[in-house]
Parts: sequence; structure tokens; C-alpha cells
Amino acid sequence: MAKVRIHVTFKDGVLDPQGKTVAAALDKMGYKNVDSVRIGKYIEIETKGAGKMGEKEVDEICDKLLANPNTEKYSFTIE
Amino acid sequence: MAKVRIHVTFKDGVLDPQGKTVAAALDKMGYKNVDSVRIGKYIEIETKGAGKMGEKEVDEICDKLLANPNTEKYSFTIE
Repeated sequence: MAKVRIHVTFKDGVLDPQGKTVAAALDKMGYKNVDSVRIGKYIEIETKGAGKMGEKEVDEICDKLLANPNTEKYSFTIE
Repeated sequence: MAKVRIHVTFKDGVLDPQGKTVAAALDKMGYKNVDSVRIGKYIEIETKGAGKMGEKEVDEICDKLLANPNTEKYSFTIE
């Protein structure tokens, strides 16, 4: 079994309205030393039995399905 | 500056419809050895200047704002 952990986040410079909202909420809650909040997706893929997944496959999956290439970047680890 | 990385995922046993949808899509795309997909949130918090954030503070933030204690669990690292 392989476990793939993928992080999809906005590219630097792309506005993250959800992150801004959370940052504003934290400020209101009294956490005054928060500079910025960025929110992304975290995806865990498990493969069947002895099934493996290579870097090329994960790149394909991210490019075609999980990340928007215009606004998002991704990184992953395979275990 | 401290950087806090938080992962919020569904508790084991809680249905993850978005993950199921992605798993079905991957199967259709020909990735036949995918067993399961779970999708969660990834949050990065940066603090201002020399501002630090302790574990107790991050626990509070997760409990009060970022995670739904009924259905979600979280983990984090502080750098």
C-alpha cells in the first residue's frame, strides 16, 4: 500500500479570500500577531494492496484533476 | 516569524463525499489501483515579526474556528 499526501495551495500573488476571512476572524478573536493565513486543500490517496503510485502518475493526477494550473500549485510526498 | 501548518481532516468513519467523488473520477481516468481518497483542509498561519504562537493557542484556534469538533480532527506543526 502506498500513501500519497498532496497539498494544493494558491500560487503566490493569487488572492485567497477564505484565508483573508480567517485572518480577520482571528484578529477579532484577539490573536493580534497573525500576519497572514493561506488556506489550501490536503488530499490523501491510498492505493490497493501492493499497488504503487509513481511521481509521474501523481503529477498527472494533480495537473488533470486536483489543482487548477492557472491559480494553484501543488506538492506531494509518496510513502 | 513563526509558521504554523495545520491539517484538518474528517474523523475516521465520517463519510467524505468529496473524497469519494475524486476516487470515482480517478477510477474513470484509468487509475485502477486507488483504494481511497480523503480530502481535508490545509491552513498556513504566519505570525508577525518576532511573534510566536504556542501549541495551546493553535489548539484553541482549531477548536474554536478551523475544525468542526463533531466531524473533524486536526494536527499541526509550528516552525
